[in-house]
Amino acid sequence: MYDIIAKKRDGGVLSDEEIQFFITSYVAGEIPDYQASALLMAIFLRGMTPHETAQLTMCMAHSGDMVDLSAIDGIKVDKHSTGGVGDKTTLIVAPIVASLGVKVAKMSGRGLGHTGGTIDKMESIPGLHTDLDRARFFEIVRRVGCCVVGQTGNLVPADKKLYALRDVTATVNCIPLIASSIMSKKIAAGSDCILLDVKTGSGAFMKTVEDSIKLAQAMVEIGEHVGRQTVALITDMDRPLGCNIGNAIEIEEVCSTLHGEGPEDLTEVCLDLAANMLYLAGKGAPTACRALARGQIANGQGFAKFCEMAAAQGGNPAVLENPALFPKAAAEYDVPAAADGWITAMDTEKCGIASVELGAGREQKGDPVDYSAGIVLLKKTGDCVCRGEPIARFYAADKQKCVSAAQLFEGAVSIGQEAPAPVPLVHARVSAAGVERF
Amino acid sequence: MYDIIAKKRDGGVLSDEEIQFFITSYVAGEIPDYQASALLMAIFLRGMTPHETAQLTMCMAHSGDMVDLSAIDGIKVDKHSTGGVGDKTTLIVAPIVASLGVKVAKMSGRGLGHTGGTIDKMESIPGLHTDLDRARFFEIVRRVGCCVVGQTGNLVPADKKLYALRDVTATVNCIPLIASSIMSKKIAAGSDCILLDVKTGSGAFMKTVEDSIKLAQAMVEIGEHVGRQTVALITDMDRPLGCNIGNAIEIEEVCSTLHGEGPEDLTEVCLDLAANMLYLAGKGAPTACRALARGQIANGQGFAKFCEMAAAQGGNPAVLENPALFPKAAAEYDVPAAADGWITAMDTEKCGIASVELGAGREQKGDPVDYSAGIVLLKKTGDCVCRGEPIARFYAADKQKCVSAAQLFEGAVSIGQEAPAPVPLVHARVSAAGVERF
Repeated sequence: MYDIIAKKRDGGVLSDEEIQFFITSYVAGEIPDYQASALLMAIFLRGMTPHETAQLTMCMAHSGDMVDLSAIDGIKVDKHSTGGVGDKTTLIVAPIVASLGVKVAKMSGRGLGHTGGTIDKMESIPGLHTDLDRARFFEIVRRVGCCVVGQTGNLVPADKKLYALRDVTATVNCIPLIASSIMSKKIAAGSDCILLDVKTGSGAFMKTVEDSIKLAQAMVEIGEHVGRQTVALITDMDRPLGCNIGNAIEIEEVCSTLHGEGPEDLTEVCLDLAANMLYLAGKGAPTACRALARGQIANGQGFAKFCEMAAAQGGNPAVLENPALFPKAAAEYDVPAAADGWITAMDTEKCGIASVELGAGREQKGDPVDYSAGIVLLKKTGDCVCRGEPIARFYAADKQKCVSAAQLFEGAVSIGQEAPAPVPLVHARVSAAGVERF
Repeated sequence: MYDIIAKKRDGGVLSDEEIQFFITSYVAGEIPDYQASALLMAIFLRGMTPHETAQLTMCMAHSGDMVDLSAIDGIKVDKHSTGGVGDKTTLIVAPIVASLGVKVAKMSGRGLGHTGGTIDKMESIPGLHTDLDRARFFEIVRRVGCCVVGQTGNLVPADKKLYALRDVTATVNCIPLIASSIMSKKIAAGSDCILLDVKTGSGAFMKTVEDSIKLAQAMVEIGEHVGRQTVALITDMDRPLGCNIGNAIEIEEVCSTLHGEGPEDLTEVCLDLAANMLYLAGKGAPTACRALARGQIANGQGFAKFCEMAAAQGGNPAVLENPALFPKAAAEYDVPAAADGWITAMDTEKCGIASVELGAGREQKGDPVDYSAGIVLLKKTGDCVCRGEPIARFYAADKQKCVSAAQLFEGAVSIGQEAPAPVPLVHARVSAAGVERF
């Protein structure tokens, strides 16, 4: 291990065997954390070649269970988002592509910090379970076409252990390490193709488009290197996606979007994501696939598939047909605009933190979540507002939570005297063929 | 701690308070090794400013006992060698300068790996103790003028803990960390002035003159920064110093050198070291001081002072007057030259390892040392040899040790058909005024 640290410290390229030794021995507890953290810092500052990153990813993926989806017919396409605020896209695009015959066997995570989690949103549907065993998960994917569950089994223990160490040694924000962490989980999860949604902006892990493209390139390179066709979209997270930030209220927005009545930004991003998943599954060119996806909204089959999936997982489809049946928060609170003008920016991370304050998310792993809490944005970046006009409606268990969240939220909103320039919803598409910027 | 790691990782300059926090908390066990090692790797790759290095040094020095030598009259001059093979200079220069009224209160170390230790050499004198308590140490320095003991008390615990971590995380070979490690111990040891002997070449930690100069500059800067006048000589360790490598046989060479009958290289280096210690103590210009030192060899006062110091520490001065009284090794073995020609190089680290194989040193801390074992070089780099002619005489407890050491030694010696170019014994002198190269 000493020699491996010294080699990377001096800018050397680690061999496949050295990377394998590191991961295997570290997971087995044979390498102390202080040596692993020295290597991680050397990797942070010296980087890794694409080949090293791919090898690291594969060793991590193989450190635990590898899900074998071959018992499910057809092409399985996975999707991963790097995490954002108001990001309910999985629950829109998975039913759309499944309704066109593409299988989605998706493991998702819970919310933590300012970002929400698809599993929490799913569980806000009364009766719905996400802790299905492998057999039930496979059965639903096979029969319905899509299923979204929490992580099951001993998936990528190397990532769990390394991520915990990176988190306390200032070695998180390093592209080869982020890329291998994400891709090892996607590879272990077993799908044939992977669509990555790399968020960029104030609510995202990557704050700039260029950094997001670099991360996307690293992940696409890994995917191609190990034989999983991978495409990444760089999507905007400089403002929350859609209008609703929470759990049950995001499910309401999923339903309205699948009915063709969702916010334009959310709808357009979902169509791009779905188009690229269909493209990866061999359904045609992305433009043709986008039209296919749009059709599944228009004809109601996307929504029907969502209801079918929710019901298969034990959820009550009646609330999806009539979201008024969702339990309601005790307190409602309207946040007024502080001035006349245009909303020029909305710090999206701060919006996410305000939603956590309302009870919709969690500061620490294991904290409970209030499914009925959250924020409905009545105005978004680029909208013109009058002083005192409500710009957001808060939902929480009590008014005190609303008041303290409002303080956080007001600090997130900038109002100016000129309309901000529009920004694209999708900044770039990264595939094996290269980078297309929009 | 996380923020400190991240700041250094990004190339920032740590504040005095941040460095103080790191050292204090790490010594107190409040910072885990895995965070400390991440910071050490970030320091390794990002460096430290002279001010940061000085602050680190002072925080480390103050992490344990600070020796207060003010109870001893006169200027106290310390000396430190970065470690070599056949380096017995302390035992020659300390008596010389003490015989001229300059006090030397010296703490030395034991041998480890290919380098010998002054304490082991001292202890080869029958009856001599190096584990004196502080009162006895001070009393001898006051009365005799010099005393050489092992490290006593809780000196620089931060260095012990950090060095152990650096040793297993590939962060040893980093100039700010080496410089602060050495200088923190010298500063805690309490002398007014510090002479550094930075070895360079195949037997040294620093393999090139330029690296040695950089390390010397870092240490001189620290000394001046904290008010301890510091000078460094860059001396050659591309060949063993003198002819004898071991313990009792090095004491024999100390005696012959103090009698004016030592090897030329050892004598000249010792005169330069003594001259600079006298210069630091205010005894005049280095050239005049060199003549003073030479005089103390010629008039026998240097040797008399060495005997006086050894006797004060319990040693039997009779063996110093008549080294034939030293216990003799059971086995002697002459190593023949493998070819006709000139000795063009002698890998000094390998010579040191051969002496460890004979029993003169130790591979692991705590291993016993055979005081009578070692190597007497009959020929050195630049000498002309005939095939079969003895080039070294080995001493050990048994012949088997000699045979295996001879294999190592033969691999260290290169014989060629042209005499090698002579190299200076002292490559450079580094002081606050700058670098003089010779």
